[in-house]
Amino acid sequence: MSDRSYTYDALSLGQTFEAGPRRVTLDDIATFARISGDFTALHTDAEYAAATPLGGLVAHGALSLAIATGLAHDTGAFETTVLAFRSLEASYDRPVFPDDDLTLTLEVDELDERPRPTRGRVRFETKLRNQHGKVVMSGHWYLVLRRDPAPEAGA
Amino acid sequence: MSDRSYTYDALSLGQTFEAGPRRVTLDDIATFARISGDFTALHTDAEYAAATPLGGLVAHGALSLAIATGLAHDTGAFETTVLAFRSLEASYDRPVFPDDDLTLTLEVDELDERPRPTRGRVRFETKLRNQHGKVVMSGHWYLVLRRDPAPEAGA
Repeated sequence: MSDRSYTYDALSLGQTFEAGPRRVTLDDIATFARISGDFTALHTDAEYAAATPLGGLVAHGALSLAIATGLAHDTGAFETTVLAFRSLEASYDRPVFPDDDLTLTLEVDELDERPRPTRGRVRFETKLRNQHGKVVMSGHWYLVLRRDPAPEAGA
Repeated sequence: MSDRSYTYDALSLGQTFEAGPRRVTLDDIATFARISGDFTALHTDAEYAAATPLGGLVAHGALSLAIATGLAHDTGAFETTVLAFRSLEASYDRPVFPDDDLTLTLEVDELDERPRPTRGRVRFETKLRNQHGKVVMSGHWYLVLRRDPAPEAGA
């Protein structure tokens, strides 16, 4: 490989990747409301949000997840080797506020040679943290990555 | 309640909510790449994507999830009663292509009176389908909804 992407075979348990910080802006939240169609008042109505226990607008959980996928892309670790993002579990642990700076950590915590000889499934433990080091989203992602080619006979 | 939102107490197992269709456009995919930061070639490079087994650009999985949350908002079922979107599991079952029309079904499949007398946790089975009726994303969402006020003494 001429890039810094990892095949399934190049990964080992416990290996970690980090990216960020990425700032979440008020404009990001407004754009996300528009593209998702989720105009829930806590994300779009500053006056309403100010009167809630959270004290102001917060980012959609699905926006935090979207940003986490962008940070995963920023690591460059799977750019040319990822074949599929298969499934995920995510817990929204703390609110994300406008101007928070988010950082992603991915840790390889399961390697599964299925489904085929040419590809393997990797489970990553994912943690998205804010500028105070607090985890705002956590969970697991299941990606399918390309494997190294088998050595050719006689090579 | 003067609106059509459901409290925790107003829900029953097996109850379903539907919304859609919502069309996914090429512009949605480009906007989502920008806001998430996920510029993976399969979502942003038409020439690259055309040469893959999928035959063209596909939507980010996290965009399908975002659209599903917008469709959930469109049901109006939880507009004024939702206190938190706590966690989720999602499986990306089939690719979503530009100009696909997506429809969401939410089914109440678990009711849990915790964490407090004033709120309860609801698990929804979620299915996002395309215009051919095929499930493109499935999973579970865990929401915390407001409960009905307890009857007042002497009322």
